[in-house]
Amino acid sequence: MQRICFLLRVKPDRLEEYRERHKTVWPEMRQALQETGWHNYSLFLSDDGLLVGYLETDDFEAARAGMAAREVNHRWQAEMAEFFEDLESGSADSDMRPLTEVFHLD
Amino acid sequence: MQRICFLLRVKPDRLEEYRERHKTVWPEMRQALQETGWHNYSLFLSDDGLLVGYLETDDFEAARAGMAAREVNHRWQAEMAEFFEDLESGSADSDMRPLTEVFHLD
Repeated sequence: MQRICFLLRVKPDRLEEYRERHKTVWPEMRQALQETGWHNYSLFLSDDGLLVGYLETDDFEAARAGMAAREVNHRWQAEMAEFFEDLESGSADSDMRPLTEVFHLD
Repeated sequence: MQRICFLLRVKPDRLEEYRERHKTVWPEMRQALQETGWHNYSLFLSDDGLLVGYLETDDFEAARAGMAAREVNHRWQAEMAEFFEDLESGSADSDMRPLTEVFHLD
């Protein structure tokens, strides 16, 4: 099992709307994440817009590829893209780069 | 159960040493964390020194208070303090401030 942590940056003037949208993530988007191996998945947001993602998965590259192949993810990412700063790929899910885990305690 | 995410900043010229030290966290420090309710606790480090902590606990304030009362934690934090930038309190464990969780999927 892999523990994955990644960072993204939300535009400071869109924080409230980003929070609101994530209270009502589409059920089919949640189902797609579950089916493609995104477990214990949380997003945390700092007051200045730094977004931290944490998830547990058997294989992060497979989990990303699984979501990349889902139509619902394309619709969701298209709606989310405008909330993020500095997306190199144009899409948050392509810009996720894991940090290095340096310590773990079960 | 609470899921907690916090940020700290490691000095860029101390990243390698910080990583190395966390490969050999003292057994009594690991035991103290377990006994005071720090579960599934990971630290992730970015290349520029941003440190992300993630843990699960029944009560984060109780878990922090538990560690604050442990002598081994004082010794550990005293050795770690020099690795961090901008510690307002002088100690990383006092400077931990949780981010807001905006999304979760089991």
